[in-house]
Amino acid sequence: MLQGRQTWVFPVPPVVTATGTAVGHMESEGPLGRCFDIIHKEPWLGKESFEKAEQCLLEQACLEALKKANLDTNGVNMFLAGDLINQLSSSCFTARSLKIPFLGLFGACSTAMESLALASLLVSAGGAHTVLAATSSHNNAAEKQFRYPNEYGAQKNDTCQLTVTAAGSAVVQDVGNGPKITAVTIGAIEDMGLKDPFNMGAAMAPAAAQTIINHFKERDVAADYYDLILTGDLGRVGSKILVDLLHNAGLMVESEKICDGGVLIYSEEQKPFAGGSGCGCMAAVAYGYIYNEMLAGRLKKALLVATGALMSPLTYQQNESIPGIAHAVALEVLE
Amino acid sequence: MLQGRQTWVFPVPPVVTATGTAVGHMESEGPLGRCFDIIHKEPWLGKESFEKAEQCLLEQACLEALKKANLDTNGVNMFLAGDLINQLSSSCFTARSLKIPFLGLFGACSTAMESLALASLLVSAGGAHTVLAATSSHNNAAEKQFRYPNEYGAQKNDTCQLTVTAAGSAVVQDVGNGPKITAVTIGAIEDMGLKDPFNMGAAMAPAAAQTIINHFKERDVAADYYDLILTGDLGRVGSKILVDLLHNAGLMVESEKICDGGVLIYSEEQKPFAGGSGCGCMAAVAYGYIYNEMLAGRLKKALLVATGALMSPLTYQQNESIPGIAHAVALEVLE
Repeated sequence: MLQGRQTWVFPVPPVVTATGTAVGHMESEGPLGRCFDIIHKEPWLGKESFEKAEQCLLEQACLEALKKANLDTNGVNMFLAGDLINQLSSSCFTARSLKIPFLGLFGACSTAMESLALASLLVSAGGAHTVLAATSSHNNAAEKQFRYPNEYGAQKNDTCQLTVTAAGSAVVQDVGNGPKITAVTIGAIEDMGLKDPFNMGAAMAPAAAQTIINHFKERDVAADYYDLILTGDLGRVGSKILVDLLHNAGLMVESEKICDGGVLIYSEEQKPFAGGSGCGCMAAVAYGYIYNEMLAGRLKKALLVATGALMSPLTYQQNESIPGIAHAVALEVLE
Repeated sequence: MLQGRQTWVFPVPPVVTATGTAVGHMESEGPLGRCFDIIHKEPWLGKESFEKAEQCLLEQACLEALKKANLDTNGVNMFLAGDLINQLSSSCFTARSLKIPFLGLFGACSTAMESLALASLLVSAGGAHTVLAATSSHNNAAEKQFRYPNEYGAQKNDTCQLTVTAAGSAVVQDVGNGPKITAVTIGAIEDMGLKDPFNMGAAMAPAAAQTIINHFKERDVAADYYDLILTGDLGRVGSKILVDLLHNAGLMVESEKICDGGVLIYSEEQKPFAGGSGCGCMAAVAYGYIYNEMLAGRLKKALLVATGALMSPLTYQQNESIPGIAHAVALEVLE
C-alpha cells in the first residue's frame, strides 16, 4: 500500500457511498449554493451560541450523509472529525450525540482531508467496514475565537480569508457504489518564515505544492492524470503562488485544472476578501460540489488537497511564523 | 482485523522498537523517576515560554526514541502526535522541527493511546514501515491556558488532578524487536452529565469502563488475560469508580491488576491532589515505566487505557457537561 515515503495507493479502493453538507446563508448564496443539502438563513441555527450552532451544522451534515447511505449511527464503526474550535468542541460534542467510536483530528483546515485519508486507511486495512469522516467551521465561532469580539467589526485587508460557515461529511465503506479513494499523500510541514495571519494563503501554498509534487512522484502518474486539483483553502493569493511553485518545480499541471475551494465558494460580488477558509470550506466544496459532479458524470478524477495553517493566537503573539501543511486524497470514478 | 464494532486485532502485530521520555522536576522525584530518559530541573527548559518548553520536551522525547531505534527522522514515514495546547501548537511545531509527514490528533489525555493505536494501524495496514507516536503536556502551559494565570495560585480541592510535565514517544515498526501491539479498542464518548472540572476522574471513569468492557468482549479474552490494566489518567477518585463499574458490569478483573498512571507518577508526599493528568502523563508512564518493565521481563501483557475529558473552558462556561472518552491498546511480550 505504501509507495515512497508518504503515499498510500489502495489495492482495493474504499468507496465514498454518500456525503452530506450543511451551510450558512452566505455560502448558500454563492456560486455553489445549489450543491449543498441543508441551508440555514441565520447564523445561530436557533441555538444559544455560535459554537452550538456549529455543532448543529456538523450533526446535520453527518445525519444527512448517513440517511443517504441508508445507515443509522449503529452501523458506523468509527467517526473521524475535527474543527477549528479549541479542544475540538464541535466535533467532540457531535461525537457525543452520534454515539459512534470517535477519533478526534486536528490539522486546521487540512483536517478536511486528514479525516478522509484516515477513514480510507481504516476501511482499506479492514479496521472498519464503515467510517464517517467530517469537518466543520462557523464564521462567527471562529472569528470570535481567533480574532476579535465580532462586535468590533475589525478591518481586514485583501489578502485575508473569510471563515466559511459549513460542515461536510462523507461515508467511506468497503463495499457500495460511488467514487473511490484510490490514493492518499500525507504531508509534512513547510514553513517559509511568513508571519502575517492576514495572509495565510501565502503561508500555506508551499505545503500544498510540496504535497502535490510528492503525490505525483510517489504515485508515479503524469501531470495531466487528474481532471482537477482542488485545494482548500489557499484563496486567490495562495492559489496563484501554488501554480508558480508547481511550474517552477517542473510539474506542468495546466493552470485551468487547478482550483481552490475558498475561491469557488463565494462570488467576487460577495466581497470575501481573498476567499473562504475553515475546515468546513473544503468539506462542503469536496462533498457538495466535487462529489456531485462525479455522480453526474461530469468529473472522473480529482485530487483533493486540504491545506492547514498550524498557528494559534498564542504562537502569533510569541512571534512565531506560520507552519503550513497539506494532505492529498485522490477521488476517482472507476469503471 | 476488525472484531466486533470497534476492536482491531492485528494479524501481524506491529512492534514498539523503542520509546523515549522527557520529564520535569516533580515527575523525576516521584516513584517512577528512575524510569525516565531525560530529566529537567526547572520548568522553562531554558526557553522563553512554557509552550516552547513543552515543545522542547516533546522534541527530546522523540529524538531519544529515534536514537534508541537507531533511526534518523528521514527513516520515519509518519509522525502522529497531540497535546493539550490550543491548536496543538507543541505537536505542530515539533512536527516542523522533525520534518516528518504529520497527522495531528486530539482526544485530550486519551491522545496518548489514540496516537499509538493509529500508529499501529498504519504499520499493520502496510501504510508505513515506521511511525513515531508521541504526546506531551506541561504543567505551567496547561494551567495557564485552562485555569488561571499561574501567579494567582488558585486553591484546589482533593478531587483535582495536576497536569504532568512530561512527554513520551514510541517508535512503531513492522519489523524489529520489542513488545508488540496485539489489539486496540477505539472508544465512544460516555457522558453521565458531570460538570465539575475539578473532578475529571469521575467524569472519565465511565468511558474507561465501557472501553475496557468492549475490549474484553470484542477481543474475546478472559478477565485475567492481562497482567495489568493501566489507565491514564483517572487519578485516585476515578480509579475507585472504575473498579466498581467493571465489577458491577460483571467483568471481574482483580483490583490489584488495575492501576493508573496519574496515581503512579507522584507519591502522596508530593501532594498531587487526586494524582497527575495530561497527555504526557500516560505517555511517560506507558513508555517509561511499562515498556521498561516489559524489556526487563517483569511484565508480559498490559492493556493501556488512555482517558480524555473532552471539555474546554468555553464549554464549561456554557454550562455543558464533560464528555469522556477512552482508547485501549494491548501491549504484549510475545514469545
